[in-house]
Amino acid sequence: MSETMNKQIRLASRPSGWVTEENFTVTEEALPDPGDGQLLVRNIFMSVDPYMRGRMNDTKSYVPPFQIGEVLQAGIVGQVVSSNNADFAESDYVVGMLGWENYSISDGAQLRKIETGAIPLSYHLGILGMPGMTAYVGLHTIAQAQAEDSVFVSAASGAVGSVVGQLAKIHGCRVAGCAGSDDKVALLTDELGFDAAFNYRNSKSLPGSFAEVCPDGIDVNFENVGGEIFEAALWSMRDFGRVALCGMISNYNDEQLQPGPRGMMVIIGRRLRIQGFIVTDHPEACQEYAVKAAGWLAEGKLQYRETIAEGIENAPGAFINMLKGGNTGKQIVQLAAA
Amino acid sequence: MSETMNKQIRLASRPSGWVTEENFTVTEEALPDPGDGQLLVRNIFMSVDPYMRGRMNDTKSYVPPFQIGEVLQAGIVGQVVSSNNADFAESDYVVGMLGWENYSISDGAQLRKIETGAIPLSYHLGILGMPGMTAYVGLHTIAQAQAEDSVFVSAASGAVGSVVGQLAKIHGCRVAGCAGSDDKVALLTDELGFDAAFNYRNSKSLPGSFAEVCPDGIDVNFENVGGEIFEAALWSMRDFGRVALCGMISNYNDEQLQPGPRGMMVIIGRRLRIQGFIVTDHPEACQEYAVKAAGWLAEGKLQYRETIAEGIENAPGAFINMLKGGNTGKQIVQLAAA
Repeated sequence: MSETMNKQIRLASRPSGWVTEENFTVTEEALPDPGDGQLLVRNIFMSVDPYMRGRMNDTKSYVPPFQIGEVLQAGIVGQVVSSNNADFAESDYVVGMLGWENYSISDGAQLRKIETGAIPLSYHLGILGMPGMTAYVGLHTIAQAQAEDSVFVSAASGAVGSVVGQLAKIHGCRVAGCAGSDDKVALLTDELGFDAAFNYRNSKSLPGSFAEVCPDGIDVNFENVGGEIFEAALWSMRDFGRVALCGMISNYNDEQLQPGPRGMMVIIGRRLRIQGFIVTDHPEACQEYAVKAAGWLAEGKLQYRETIAEGIENAPGAFINMLKGGNTGKQIVQLAAA
Repeated sequence: MSETMNKQIRLASRPSGWVTEENFTVTEEALPDPGDGQLLVRNIFMSVDPYMRGRMNDTKSYVPPFQIGEVLQAGIVGQVVSSNNADFAESDYVVGMLGWENYSISDGAQLRKIETGAIPLSYHLGILGMPGMTAYVGLHTIAQAQAEDSVFVSAASGAVGSVVGQLAKIHGCRVAGCAGSDDKVALLTDELGFDAAFNYRNSKSLPGSFAEVCPDGIDVNFENVGGEIFEAALWSMRDFGRVALCGMISNYNDEQLQPGPRGMMVIIGRRLRIQGFIVTDHPEACQEYAVKAAGWLAEGKLQYRETIAEGIENAPGAFINMLKGGNTGKQIVQLAAA
């Protein structure tokens, strides 16, 4: 193996404002052989996710920041090439946190074996992985959505949002959402079962758009975007409404802290609950979801979309494009043939 | 009775920005006799509370707005003068929502009889009334404070805040707060048992002041003030912290909607829960509190401060003074001798 070269993406510099290609560097090194207890993984699919933007800043958070000069980390589906770890054998397919690179060495602690079969491998990075689990935890554990509730989700065609909407429909809720193009809006209402949706880039008045798609207000807001969209959602909440605060992607590239929604008195007057969450705090709900979701996928009750870029060199571009809303559904980078 | 005159305070105009004396008018009319099922109450103590500012605006909320030209409403402790209502007899002491006036006619629906004894009558408008109940519901039902939690309360020497701090100490929490004068801060730490407090008007840096009084951060923030104080509190929260959003008095006189706290991403990163509440949604907890608080008062475990203005003509001034933080403890207006 030592002659095989491994192409890797490292953090070259911390972005100030929007991420650019200059913040990344592509390097190549010889593959090391796995040591005692280690295994070598050939990376097939890699996930790029909004939360990674936070890890590019040098700020303490629930996950440590990426370090300059080091290989970036991502959720990866790959196949074991060679193993000195009794829990993994050559040819096993695995999913877990590995590097933005063609091959990764791992001690196995962050890896889980997956079965191959009817379900495409990449789904383990999306609807069956962290984004799908995030949708389930936010909707049920955090917002405690009830049948008949009016649910609104922003970034509704994204990896998380598209699952939120479908789970809410399965649960008997009314579902509306917003997305950043007419095509995405059509996907929501024509294929994913949303009751209503709007394109926020065309909206003349966000409160007006919310009133159109949620004429009776919102019981559960699954918030992925923040900023003005969050503000308009808050103003549309019904008494005793719940907000699952999952992300605020509109703020991730801001150089200065942005103010929160105006008119926060509605939180008191309408007795709202706003709760932030991180999916990894809820392993039992995640496990519960994984079983249910595999069944719903098999029954055709869950639809799933991916945008797939090709090649490790294109991972930075795919990440930047995703932050700008260029993807529909889950943004994946394919690093090798399955 | 028909010769007795009744002095009343009516809403003359809706304030734009800060409330002024010009928004009120004093009128006088002859006392009507109570009709069938009605009783006549001689009002003794009247409560002025921050939430009344919201009722002066013409906006739909959980309580209907005051109407121009009509007598304003307030929590009142009074004594029955004459009664055509079988539930109330002459000389009974009562508490409930009546008018900003010397005498009120009532059908009894909003009134509750109170016992006279060791506890001063005015306490039923404060520590034994709505403000005390608000403290209890916010701290326990909403924020679910646990023993050992680090609790912070803003407007800590006020009618609600001073009870929040003492209840938290009884519960085994560490308690810090802020108030608007050095005298109030001394009251908090020297007499009400707070572990630490600061004067926000002297603070050079609110985050710095929070770091001083809560060096290990905040588990429970009982928010009465909003604005920059809320922002600094939010930034000081520990993982899984809870905010009981009770009031945002710093915004009540704003002519335009003010933005919320900057940096709301901490809600996600630290998995915070922010919940607005209205005390009247929680009658069982209120009843539970009333029994406990009477006991704690009798045992000397709860201290209580009032600022008492004299005479119905001074009610508008007392209300305005309270909105500006001129009171220490509960602001009361005494309308007649007990």
